[in-house]
Amino acid sequence: MKVLVAGGAGFIGSNLVDELLAEGNEVVCIDNFFIGTERNIEHLKDNSKFTFINIDLSDLESLKRVFEQHEFDFVYHMAANSDIQASAKNPQVEYKNTYTTTFNVLECMRLYGVKNLFFCSTSAIYGDSDGKLMDENYSPLQPISYYGACKLGCEGLISAYSYMNDFHALVFRFPNVIGPRLTHGVVFDFIKKLRANPNELEILGDGNQCKPYLYVLDLVKCIQRFSNNLPQGVTTYNVGVDSATSVTKIAEIVVEKMGLKDVEFKYTGGKGGWKGDVPKFAYDLSKVHGAGWISSMTSDEAVAMTVEKVL
Amino acid sequence: MKVLVAGGAGFIGSNLVDELLAEGNEVVCIDNFFIGTERNIEHLKDNSKFTFINIDLSDLESLKRVFEQHEFDFVYHMAANSDIQASAKNPQVEYKNTYTTTFNVLECMRLYGVKNLFFCSTSAIYGDSDGKLMDENYSPLQPISYYGACKLGCEGLISAYSYMNDFHALVFRFPNVIGPRLTHGVVFDFIKKLRANPNELEILGDGNQCKPYLYVLDLVKCIQRFSNNLPQGVTTYNVGVDSATSVTKIAEIVVEKMGLKDVEFKYTGGKGGWKGDVPKFAYDLSKVHGAGWISSMTSDEAVAMTVEKVL
Repeated sequence: MKVLVAGGAGFIGSNLVDELLAEGNEVVCIDNFFIGTERNIEHLKDNSKFTFINIDLSDLESLKRVFEQHEFDFVYHMAANSDIQASAKNPQVEYKNTYTTTFNVLECMRLYGVKNLFFCSTSAIYGDSDGKLMDENYSPLQPISYYGACKLGCEGLISAYSYMNDFHALVFRFPNVIGPRLTHGVVFDFIKKLRANPNELEILGDGNQCKPYLYVLDLVKCIQRFSNNLPQGVTTYNVGVDSATSVTKIAEIVVEKMGLKDVEFKYTGGKGGWKGDVPKFAYDLSKVHGAGWISSMTSDEAVAMTVEKVL
Repeated sequence: MKVLVAGGAGFIGSNLVDELLAEGNEVVCIDNFFIGTERNIEHLKDNSKFTFINIDLSDLESLKRVFEQHEFDFVYHMAANSDIQASAKNPQVEYKNTYTTTFNVLECMRLYGVKNLFFCSTSAIYGDSDGKLMDENYSPLQPISYYGACKLGCEGLISAYSYMNDFHALVFRFPNVIGPRLTHGVVFDFIKKLRANPNELEILGDGNQCKPYLYVLDLVKCIQRFSNNLPQGVTTYNVGVDSATSVTKIAEIVVEKMGLKDVEFKYTGGKGGWKGDVPKFAYDLSKVHGAGWISSMTSDEAVAMTVEKVL
C-alpha cells in the first residue's frame, strides 16, 4: 500500500511511520516541523520506501500538489497542535494547525478520490465529565479547551465527508500518549525541571489530577490492527488503558528513575493544573476491548517506560 | 444596549435587527451580501440607531477594527452559509462562511472582552436519526452535511470559549426557518418553478420528506426572550414547532395560494431530495417548552403565511 502520514515527523506520527514501513508499506510523510522534528525521521532518510515532504498542511494548494503526484490508498492524519497548554493562550494555533489541516486533508481526499482515513481524536472532545464514565456515545460533548473544540469540529467534518464521499474512516479518541520521542507534557516537564534543580519540583495543582497514560507503541499497534479492515462509514473507538496515574505518582516515578533522593514537591494548589485542563476523567473502553484489543502496559508502566526511554 | 448582529442583512438576521431596534437597542450590523441583501435593511438607512458595515467576517483583521471602534454588550452571530444544497458541491464555502466566521467572532469577543453571545445552530448537527426523537443531549452527533459538520464545530468552539473566557452563550438548534425575506429553500423554489411553468411542478424525492417549518418572527421573539436573561456558560435549546409539513403538502399550499389549478406534480423519486439532506427527523422540544416558550404557528401555518408574504 502507498500511504500518506500527515504529521509523520511528530511524536505519534513518527512511531506510526516506523510501524507502517516495518509492515512493508510505501510511506509519504508530510510535516512542517511545527512540533515534529527532523530527528524523529532521521533514521529513515536512506529508506527507499520513505518519502518526506516539508509543507504546511494548512496550505491547501501545496497539499493538492502532493495528492496530484501520489496516488494514496490510505491517509493517516496525525497532524495537529498537540500542545493544549500553549494554544490555551492563542486559539488561532488550533484553528490553523488542528482544524484547517484536517479540512484540507479531507478536501484533498474528496478531490482526488482517496477513501480510507485514520484520524487521531482525543478524550478532550468530551470536556469535563466530573468523573462520569465516558463511552463513545457520551453526551453532551462540551470541550473546555480550544484543542478539544477543534478536534470535535474535525470529527464533525469526518462524519459529513464520510457520508458524502463514501469514506471509510477510523477515529481513535485517546488520552495522554507517552513514550519515545515525546516532546511535551508532564513527564517531559518534570524531567526538565529536575535536571535544572534536582532538589525540588514544582507541581501544578494539588497533584491528585489523575489520567490514563497510553504507551505510544501500544497505540500504534492498535491503529494498524483496526486500519487493516475498515468497515464503511466512520468507526470510532475510545482507546486507552484501564488504569491511571496521578501527577504525584508521575513525580515519584521520575525521581526514582533519575536516581534522585529527598526531592521536595511544591504544589501550586487548586483542582486542575491550568485552565482548559481536565483534572479527572474515566474512559469507557468496553468497545475496543470487545473488539479484542487491550493495551499491553498499565498507565504506571507506560510512565516508567517513557521515563527510561526519554532519560 | 449596543449590539452587534453579524450577518444582519440575511433572512433571519434582518428580522432580528428589526426586533432589536424595536426594543430600543443600538444595532451595528455586519454583512458582506454573500446571502444577505441590501433590500433586507434598506428600510433602516435613516435610523440613527442603526449602523451598517460591509466586511467579510472571515477576514479577522477587518473584524478586529469593528470591535476596536465599538464596545458591544451582546453579539448575535447569524452569519453562515445557509444554503446546504449549494455547499454540498463545495465544502470550502462552509469552511469559510460558517466555521471561520464563527471562529473570528469568538476571537474578537475574547480579545475585546465581550461576554454575551447568541448563536444560530441547527438540527443538521444531529445527522440522520432515522426518525428517533432528538433532544439536546442526543448522541452520537453524526452530521451528514458539511453545513451540519461546520455548525457542530462552531458549537465546540463556543463551549471552549465560554469556559475559557466566562462567556454567556445562548445556542439555538432549529430546523428550517421560513417567512418574509426568505431567499432559498423548497417554498422559494416551488414559487419560482410555478411562475416559470404553472402547469407542472418537479418535486425532488418522493414528496414524503417531512420537516418542521418555524416562522421567522416566532424564532426572533424566542431569541430575544431568552437572550435577555442569560445564565453563565452555554445554554442550548432545540427551538421549533411540534408539527411538520411534507414536501407534497408544501406544493399543495403554494399551488392554492398562487390560485393555480390542475398542476401536475412530477416526482424525481427516492428517499431524500439531494445528498446531505436529512429526509425525516423529529425534534424533542421539551426543554424550550418547559422554559415557557411555544411557537405561535404550526408548521403548515408557517408555510402558508410565508407563501402569502413572499408572493
